[in-house]
Amino acid sequence: MKKFSNNQLERYPVYLKYLKELEKEGKETISSPVIGKVLGYSEEQIRKDLQAVSNEAGRPKKGRSIAQLIDALETFLGYKDVMNAVIIGAGHLGGALLNYPYFGQMGLSVVAGFDIDKSKVGLQIGGKDIYPLEDLPKKWNELKASIAIITVNETAAQMAVDAAVKSGARAIWNFAPTHLIVPDGVVIETVNLASSLAVLSNRLNSQHEKEE
Amino acid sequence: MKKFSNNQLERYPVYLKYLKELEKEGKETISSPVIGKVLGYSEEQIRKDLQAVSNEAGRPKKGRSIAQLIDALETFLGYKDVMNAVIIGAGHLGGALLNYPYFGQMGLSVVAGFDIDKSKVGLQIGGKDIYPLEDLPKKWNELKASIAIITVNETAAQMAVDAAVKSGARAIWNFAPTHLIVPDGVVIETVNLASSLAVLSNRLNSQHEKEE
Repeated sequence: MKKFSNNQLERYPVYLKYLKELEKEGKETISSPVIGKVLGYSEEQIRKDLQAVSNEAGRPKKGRSIAQLIDALETFLGYKDVMNAVIIGAGHLGGALLNYPYFGQMGLSVVAGFDIDKSKVGLQIGGKDIYPLEDLPKKWNELKASIAIITVNETAAQMAVDAAVKSGARAIWNFAPTHLIVPDGVVIETVNLASSLAVLSNRLNSQHEKEE
Repeated sequence: MKKFSNNQLERYPVYLKYLKELEKEGKETISSPVIGKVLGYSEEQIRKDLQAVSNEAGRPKKGRSIAQLIDALETFLGYKDVMNAVIIGAGHLGGALLNYPYFGQMGLSVVAGFDIDKSKVGLQIGGKDIYPLEDLPKKWNELKASIAIITVNETAAQMAVDAAVKSGARAIWNFAPTHLIVPDGVVIETVNLASSLAVLSNRLNSQHEKEE
């Protein structure tokens, strides 16, 4: 299997989103330079990225077929095979993700929540049952889960990850703002809001300086 | 002002988090190779990153002073000067961010929410008042806001951004899964869950193939 950098992988859903907007507007073809201009990537980068996942090279002057690119991107991103995920931590953030309306588009189905808080167990949030965390080992296979989404607070996060791994999780999507340890063979990806904010505030400060 | 890449900016909060953990454990010094090993970055990269924001070069065999690095990172990241933010869209995700307990550590204070939904206006979520979106222009300066956080759905996102920019926002932190247009002089950073999930599922699939 080809090796992709994180940055490259992160661009594919952005391409897909844009191409689907074009398709909705009734467009049929698109050229790399146009994609680059709108999304702010170089033409070269787009050509390389799309070549890595699609045979649709396009035709000179006509551009690439939008429908074929969408199909290739959805296949590559796994949006055509649904993966089940469980949420560990049914607090404010977990609740928001249990209600998040866009996971379906991404081939992800959140099937249940888990919490140690007895007052949450037995509830339904976003139409999903909340189970006690101690039931995770027996529920993991029953729910056909592939991904554990961690939305507990930072002090509980490692414990939650350990419980998920013990139950059979091989992929952890971490929303807790802390560095977590997983054994070999388990993959982890952290959504780091502090990192995103660091980019935003640095760009804002640079902008202020330019104007002074 | 020095120019930083997004990737580099994203690493600084990760360093800071780790260094604060070490400080809590009572450690006083640390070397670049150790940081690299734990966080999975190269020693060279860490040296460059830290040099760009700190004069603390460390001493041979002793390593760098953790307290001085923390101080330099917090200054660079702007965590010592609080920036005010408002949330546009007081639904599930907006509510989670109005309740998010970690923004304070990042120098960010969420001071209010805005929504077009009359049933939300007048409520308090996470202790913050929810105002009608039409009041944003007059509230923006009163609240001393610097950042507009967009948590409306994808179809309403461009309208929300336009309203924020018209009210004086120069920085947009976008949580809606769509590509948004801002005028020159306004910075935007998108938290793209689809991109993060693309990294996770690609790594999981590569892992599966390795095992087969």
